[in-house]
Amino acid sequence: MTDDLVLRQDSAGVATLTLNRPQQRNALSRAMIAALRAELARVARDASVKAVVLTGAGPGFCSGHDLKEIQANPDPVFYAALFEACAELMLALQALPQPVIARVHGIATAAGCQLVATCDLAVASTKAHFATPGVHIGLFCSTPMVALARAVPRKRALEMLMLGESIDAETAAAYGLVNAVVAPDDLDSAIAGFTARLTAKSPLTLRIGKEAFYRQDEMGTADAYAYTAAVMARNLATQDAAEGIDAFLAKRAPVWCGA
Amino acid sequence: MTDDLVLRQDSAGVATLTLNRPQQRNALSRAMIAALRAELARVARDASVKAVVLTGAGPGFCSGHDLKEIQANPDPVFYAALFEACAELMLALQALPQPVIARVHGIATAAGCQLVATCDLAVASTKAHFATPGVHIGLFCSTPMVALARAVPRKRALEMLMLGESIDAETAAAYGLVNAVVAPDDLDSAIAGFTARLTAKSPLTLRIGKEAFYRQDEMGTADAYAYTAAVMARNLATQDAAEGIDAFLAKRAPVWCGA
Amino acid sequence: MTDDLVLRQDSAGVATLTLNRPQQRNALSRAMIAALRAELARVARDASVKAVVLTGAGPGFCSGHDLKEIQANPDPVFYAALFEACAELMLALQALPQPVIARVHGIATAAGCQLVATCDLAVASTKAHFATPGVHIGLFCSTPMVALARAVPRKRALEMLMLGESIDAETAAAYGLVNAVVAPDDLDSAIAGFTARLTAKSPLTLRIGKEAFYRQDEMGTADAYAYTAAVMARNLATQDAAEGIDAFLAKRAPVWCGA
Repeated sequence: MTDDLVLRQDSAGVATLTLNRPQQRNALSRAMIAALRAELARVARDASVKAVVLTGAGPGFCSGHDLKEIQANPDPVFYAALFEACAELMLALQALPQPVIARVHGIATAAGCQLVATCDLAVASTKAHFATPGVHIGLFCSTPMVALARAVPRKRALEMLMLGESIDAETAAAYGLVNAVVAPDDLDSAIAGFTARLTAKSPLTLRIGKEAFYRQDEMGTADAYAYTAAVMARNLATQDAAEGIDAFLAKRAPVWCGA
Repeated sequence: MTDDLVLRQDSAGVATLTLNRPQQRNALSRAMIAALRAELARVARDASVKAVVLTGAGPGFCSGHDLKEIQANPDPVFYAALFEACAELMLALQALPQPVIARVHGIATAAGCQLVATCDLAVASTKAHFATPGVHIGLFCSTPMVALARAVPRKRALEMLMLGESIDAETAAAYGLVNAVVAPDDLDSAIAGFTARLTAKSPLTLRIGKEAFYRQDEMGTADAYAYTAAVMARNLATQDAAEGIDAFLAKRAPVWCGA
Repeated sequence: MTDDLVLRQDSAGVATLTLNRPQQRNALSRAMIAALRAELARVARDASVKAVVLTGAGPGFCSGHDLKEIQANPDPVFYAALFEACAELMLALQALPQPVIARVHGIATAAGCQLVATCDLAVASTKAHFATPGVHIGLFCSTPMVALARAVPRKRALEMLMLGESIDAETAAAYGLVNAVVAPDDLDSAIAGFTARLTAKSPLTLRIGKEAFYRQDEMGTADAYAYTAAVMARNLATQDAAEGIDAFLAKRAPVWCGA
């Protein structure tokens, strides 16, 4: 047991980050946001980390912002700083060089649902539930909608946002919010299956591709092609691409050097 | 019975707008477009309206533009004014402060399908059919595609547009064009279920969130976060958010004041 | 048998283009890219062609770039020219006046999967498989992602790109990458069904609509409506629209003049 707001455990190239306020369903207090951002900054510079798993301690994944903290700070300056810090956290997840998988074992609501939508990949147990319920408390989930609207079809996003109701994991998969749904007892092995496949890749290649994905997605098609054609040419000039192609043509396993 | 092109019935905070040219499957003549826009302008200013239902009289929902009227006015000035007015109608639906639900009981074709795609939410009966059939008459559904392409996956949109064929309600739900499909006899109760849940929310919160949704959706992710973080801070400073949070933490029902 | 890299067969207004390097699973060598672009340029100017089918000779659809050619040309200038030429090929498919259907009978990987994602429509046999496997060889599928990310939901695209694994045809249909899946023996009749429906339309109308689709898709909603309202007015002033509307109201079949 520890008082750290974010736990980190590294194993075989995978950094597992665990939100650690289980009694508060891992609510994103300002301190929690700062702790997660700080850990992500460390992970970003850590060449030993090839994939990141984001999860939560206790029964829930993440319940969103800390309403008691918000109520205790009725201050426009506090509000602005809170939502800006949370938005920067989400942008940091997308800017992280490594792929990030959400491991969703319980409820993921409001900014917790936003975390799931923001991670590159997500695996849920059948016990997980997802909601953007801010509308129930007079505070529309306007920052979560940024991630949600980019992950699920428009009318599904609007339904979740305007009604605020929970959807189960199977529905979340059908909407495109998570990649896979498994029984609770199979969640860790499912995550291990994803991370084993990711850590077998060249971290350099994943970094190049992840950055390109989010950048090209905001461009018109012609601009996106001009940009990604240049990315491909640069990627092809790396040692890992030369090794990968040579290994493929020689029918042997590649050995990545990360350069 | 009435000659009004758009009927309005208000009940318990819900304004039901009914396109009323049943013999013409509620075709969108210029007068019909003007009547609906005028009614939407009134609804937008009416604080008693918390949710809007859009439906059609008779067996169809809406069959799109009025081809006889178009044929009778072979005039570029008429054409331009017609499509501009229709586009402004669609933009007015999205700009309306209240959520709008399409109640689709029959065919919704061309600009009628566009209406469904444009409404925030849509519920269809199993008797509903959807098509963008302009290609059959030499007039590609180029304005309907704006709404369709933002609601359904690209290849589904292109298939509907290039082939012009009808899809049934279940297929429309699978594509994301409607939120739910029910038996014809259950359509009104399904709509009532949606509106009861919407009218229980703070109208101010819904207004803030709906506006934010369509605005952030056209921004890059970083800009969208900067914008929505400011929206959240402003929303949190409203009385309804203070009330909602207080009620939630005190485990009581909130009482909205709309400010 | 022929040495031509791209075979073309015309029948009843349909040009079928077949990638013809079956031993190399129709890999996109520079010569193959140039040959396909040249043929598309001829098709674009050919008023007898009302629809295009793109397929591949032998067991595969297209395996992407030619890795042996890439390995034999370790030259930044070659790399840049290769990916720019491939990007221009994809843009040419979207800019083609006629609708293009991918006929996918076998594997479609990397730039081959990109071809499928880029075609307006796609029909797959149950033997087809789809992947963006570049990450396995240290070369992330960054140009394929442009087309893939615009066809399938975000987390599905990231999963395909980051893991590099194959999905079967049914999964591809569920993701929105293909429009239909049929048994291998039914593939040609399914394609014929699509082309028969497309060639019955006014080619002018299809051309107007296809161009409008890709252009409006990159605009904000208000701009997209201003643009498409003008497109509709221009479309309505064509003889084919006048004929189509007259035929519809008179309950007779239209006769297109293509003007």
